[in-house]
Amino acid sequence: MKKTYLLTPGPTPLPENIISIFARPILHHRTPQFQALFEGVKTGLKYLFQTKQDVIVLASTGTGAMDAAVSNLFSKGDKVITINGGKFGERWTKISKNYGLNPIEIKLVPGNAIEPNQLETTVRSNTDTKAILFQASETSTGVKMPTPEICKIAKEYNLLTICDAITACGVFDLPMDAFGLDVMITGSQKALMIPPGLSFIALSDKAWAMRERSELPKFYFDLDKERKALSKNQTAWTPAISLIQGLEESLKMIKEEGLQNVFARHDLLARATRNAIQALGLEILASKSPSPAVTAVKVPPQIKDGKAIPKTMRDKYGVTIAGGQDELEGKIFRLSHFGYCDRFDITTGISCLELTLNDLGYPVEFGKGVGAVLKTFANAKL
Amino acid sequence: MKKTYLLTPGPTPLPENIISIFARPILHHRTPQFQALFEGVKTGLKYLFQTKQDVIVLASTGTGAMDAAVSNLFSKGDKVITINGGKFGERWTKISKNYGLNPIEIKLVPGNAIEPNQLETTVRSNTDTKAILFQASETSTGVKMPTPEICKIAKEYNLLTICDAITACGVFDLPMDAFGLDVMITGSQKALMIPPGLSFIALSDKAWAMRERSELPKFYFDLDKERKALSKNQTAWTPAISLIQGLEESLKMIKEEGLQNVFARHDLLARATRNAIQALGLEILASKSPSPAVTAVKVPPQIKDGKAIPKTMRDKYGVTIAGGQDELEGKIFRLSHFGYCDRFDITTGISCLELTLNDLGYPVEFGKGVGAVLKTFANAKL
Repeated sequence: MKKTYLLTPGPTPLPENIISIFARPILHHRTPQFQALFEGVKTGLKYLFQTKQDVIVLASTGTGAMDAAVSNLFSKGDKVITINGGKFGERWTKISKNYGLNPIEIKLVPGNAIEPNQLETTVRSNTDTKAILFQASETSTGVKMPTPEICKIAKEYNLLTICDAITACGVFDLPMDAFGLDVMITGSQKALMIPPGLSFIALSDKAWAMRERSELPKFYFDLDKERKALSKNQTAWTPAISLIQGLEESLKMIKEEGLQNVFARHDLLARATRNAIQALGLEILASKSPSPAVTAVKVPPQIKDGKAIPKTMRDKYGVTIAGGQDELEGKIFRLSHFGYCDRFDITTGISCLELTLNDLGYPVEFGKGVGAVLKTFANAKL
Repeated sequence: MKKTYLLTPGPTPLPENIISIFARPILHHRTPQFQALFEGVKTGLKYLFQTKQDVIVLASTGTGAMDAAVSNLFSKGDKVITINGGKFGERWTKISKNYGLNPIEIKLVPGNAIEPNQLETTVRSNTDTKAILFQASETSTGVKMPTPEICKIAKEYNLLTICDAITACGVFDLPMDAFGLDVMITGSQKALMIPPGLSFIALSDKAWAMRERSELPKFYFDLDKERKALSKNQTAWTPAISLIQGLEESLKMIKEEGLQNVFARHDLLARATRNAIQALGLEILASKSPSPAVTAVKVPPQIKDGKAIPKTMRDKYGVTIAGGQDELEGKIFRLSHFGYCDRFDITTGISCLELTLNDLGYPVEFGKGVGAVLKTFANAKL
């Protein structure tokens, strides 16, 4: 008998009270029953996004909403600034190029956040830029980007802010309206604790005005059509009904815990994880600006095959974590600590890591990592 | 106590052995476990599509795959012929226009199938056309289109055939390769008996060659990226994991019943429904070429409020059927008979219809419709 655990930055584990919802008969979407459900979902999403704007629900995963942001707001030849702090920042550049935009990419050293000064310099030398496209949390490197500072610069130079908040929204405080974000995006399999298959996108008034002027072709991801349907508590196309039924419950759970409490929990779990990593003598990739969503850890030089860490944890012990992607493959591993995640998910993850490091020949004083976790919990006032 | 029944052309009811799969813990998609599952799914989809080509799985509903077909194969200004037999045929025209194509639309009287002669005339006077875009089954009118004849004309004039088979694939015999279809599309909430959120698209060699030359922008729906990922039993972006787990089981069920038996069952249920409708003195919209997926029935003149039929069936009796859409709203109602649907779903649907017609003042001799259903079953050799 081997139980399995999931500590990945998406999908995150499904709460038991949500999982049972997916074992209900299917509901038809063009009915008053669905409309009533969807109305509640709309309210819950505004609370989650901390916005007065409508949050549009797409039947796609997060990349679909990123695609929608570009194809709905811009036109061929538009200049945008993309912040490439890793695989997902790079995706903004790729999408922009695919649609014929002219992206000015700021490529960061993996693990680094953008320096506001660096961003401002780029903005100043590209005065014809329309928008800054970035991640609030770069999942591939575990970096938290300085969203308020990015928004401040954007405001000063009258640029739109297009924020991939896929592992940020519902993870840490990211009030869309208060920060002045023009587009905010998330996905269902992250802080929302349901399976992948839904993405979410909200636009500011300024972004909706840009939508009017965009000349790029779009159909399935036409946000204007979705906005009109949303006003009737509907979607433009057939929605992913069963996932929306689960969403209703996850939004209720978040509301019940309270957003600020959710953020405090994630912060505590992230700090506990980072303390454990340091106690074990390992190095955090994003040491200066770590994300409360996921901690990326450098593979120590004693372990030659970096991919063996997540592989051993999963295959020998049943604990699934994430490895590095693309240029970071084999160089880092990533422990996630958000969504349906509690104290003992962290002790489990760190316990498993201690066993695995020992298996792979890295010197471990058993209990040192877990001890640091427990100490963090004991000192927390939560 | 009131049980509920679903006789709509999508979503269709979920089989009990599939529904329980959705109450499993979530699986991570970048794992050998998922890859093994996805490999089985790939094989099952080839069997369903009756093709040697790879069937690509998108995290979107069917309209997403229609969007993908246009944006992946064509370039601005390309001339195509669209067959508009109803709401979904019209969608081909809209998508084509959105992407700057030049669609020549053949608009049919609702309820009619395309006449091969009419199609050939249009093709002949538009020799610079690249493709014919059509529905194998037009869900909004319950019409079965003459796919083999359409393919024959396309072949003669060297045109691509782009087939929305959303309520056709797995409903009746539509062998992609044998018919020479270049693109075939379906969705998860139809004959596949799982919730909406997945769409499927397969391309012929000729269509893949067109993909190379297409100049339209695309990112999320880039089929080339998906094809490459599929060769590693993966998807380009995060897949809708839980739906794919359900899909594995539904494909097994279809394989176990056998495609030809599935088709024979749908044909029997459709015939039984049509016989009941006629026995009740009602008129079928698509009398000449009815679809085995769904039967569209004209609201009789005795009933002034046509929308009252589906409303009464649903709200008073718990049986959800579909009404008419757009210009057919209030003029027809639609009874579906495919997917997880058996003899007694039809007797239920027709029983409920008899009660409802009587409620609304249409003269009914109780049992006449159901009697016709039972007679059809008794005469069938199945």
